[in-house]
Amino acid sequence: MILLDGKKIAADIKEEIAIEVRKINNNGHDTPHLAAIIVGNNGASITYVNAKVKACELVGFKSTLIRLPEEITENELLNEIAILNTNKDIDGFIVQLPLPKHIDEQKVLMAVDPNKDVDGFHPTNVGKMALNLPTFISATPFGILELLERYQVETSGKHVVVLGRSHIVGSPMSILLSQKRKVGNATVTMCHSRTKNLKEITLQGDIIIAAIGIPEFLKADMVKDNVTIIDVGITRLEDASKKSGFKLVGDVDFKEVSKKSKFITPVPGGVGPMTIAMLLKNTLLACQRNK
Amino acid sequence: MILLDGKKIAADIKEEIAIEVRKINNNGHDTPHLAAIIVGNNGASITYVNAKVKACELVGFKSTLIRLPEEITENELLNEIAILNTNKDIDGFIVQLPLPKHIDEQKVLMAVDPNKDVDGFHPTNVGKMALNLPTFISATPFGILELLERYQVETSGKHVVVLGRSHIVGSPMSILLSQKRKVGNATVTMCHSRTKNLKEITLQGDIIIAAIGIPEFLKADMVKDNVTIIDVGITRLEDASKKSGFKLVGDVDFKEVSKKSKFITPVPGGVGPMTIAMLLKNTLLACQRNK
Repeated sequence: MILLDGKKIAADIKEEIAIEVRKINNNGHDTPHLAAIIVGNNGASITYVNAKVKACELVGFKSTLIRLPEEITENELLNEIAILNTNKDIDGFIVQLPLPKHIDEQKVLMAVDPNKDVDGFHPTNVGKMALNLPTFISATPFGILELLERYQVETSGKHVVVLGRSHIVGSPMSILLSQKRKVGNATVTMCHSRTKNLKEITLQGDIIIAAIGIPEFLKADMVKDNVTIIDVGITRLEDASKKSGFKLVGDVDFKEVSKKSKFITPVPGGVGPMTIAMLLKNTLLACQRNK
Repeated sequence: MILLDGKKIAADIKEEIAIEVRKINNNGHDTPHLAAIIVGNNGASITYVNAKVKACELVGFKSTLIRLPEEITENELLNEIAILNTNKDIDGFIVQLPLPKHIDEQKVLMAVDPNKDVDGFHPTNVGKMALNLPTFISATPFGILELLERYQVETSGKHVVVLGRSHIVGSPMSILLSQKRKVGNATVTMCHSRTKNLKEITLQGDIIIAAIGIPEFLKADMVKDNVTIIDVGITRLEDASKKSGFKLVGDVDFKEVSKKSKFITPVPGGVGPMTIAMLLKNTLLACQRNK
């Protein structure tokens, strides 16, 4: 069993990006610049966006954090986005989700200039992804592709079973892995809450991507030997034995499933750390396109 | 065995659209107006675009056919598109493909205003489709959804096997049928040229969508009893016994597979006739949105 060590790969990628930043600076070009908008005081969102800012510093990017009050109107937020869209110093920006309920999230995501949409959430970028055109692939799917590539997990002709049809993970993964691309050319089955005989299908998977958010859902008797497991789920469970009082658990029963696995991502330390690295990568790409 | 009679359903849809057009006119609104650009003298393209114009007449739409010479430059074509984009009298328009080789097809499709892109080929519309947002679904997938709906073919929880990953049919069908939508909620397996053990997979299909362009590829021993077959393929084969000298053949061995089928589309007369009907439907939707 080989661990797909997202923490290590993410660190490698950040190091590679830092080298690119130095090259950009040495060539006299502007430093890549990521901006992030955060609305309100959601603790998890603040933690996450701060981690993104810190990652920018680490690789040598410029970063701008725009904190807006919970009560901001939709129009005011759209205005802030319009300013970032036209600000030539900013290569890419993100709007940290979720937004307060009085704001139409879809409308906000649609307002971001697709050329600066380093989260890859704008329909134009989703469409380009589906059409296998150059675009910003959103961070989690992009991170999974990268993990599979760096560990040379063969996908061509393999049967990939995707659990969960979210727009953030399951759906794009199923699209990407069936495409004619380096990490792709797989036969892909997309499963979700309406799927019957799920076990019959997971037992066929050479690679299983679990992204349903149900802790330890995938059990050892549902997978075949030598399976590759990508566990995207991350749930906090109470655990009195931990100092923090909780433990993080994926969608996969790691202890048992790992015994049958060829490759498997740990939780935490698998897919999670990849996302910020890929956001930085997209920002670098945005910056390089603008040269 | 029940034939999925695309010819009949397409005629029904056109009749329904004609009724809507009369309502629109009675309410004093402008008649739906479809424009089509065709470049050069490709015989098949001219036949097809003429059929679209004729269908417009049939349902009471206005139509405009813009014929441009083979030698037109890309910029001149982009100019024509810009004119249609801003022409308020035109609700939707299409650029008949293929285009001459000196013109970048993707660039041309990207230039069409997504709000007038009734072919649903613009990345923004493909992205909205993938995100399950209101959009123009392109004619062939839209037609297949409509056929399944009108014959009340259950898709929820069924295993759909899609053969072929084209951007026009296979890929969008796999996305649409796995979504949370009326005709959807299926477990979907996307197969293509790199798929191994194809027969093992097709034998699991409650519904098989064949869109690979290989005549009579899908044989009876590859499907289970009571399967539903959507045959998107259409190939001309020489046939001396026919007055025309050829016959049209689908991707499915109709004679044998139909014996095991619950529902099956004939070729011709199945999916084919639906496409123009759905183009008209999209144009009607574009017109209604503009009201």
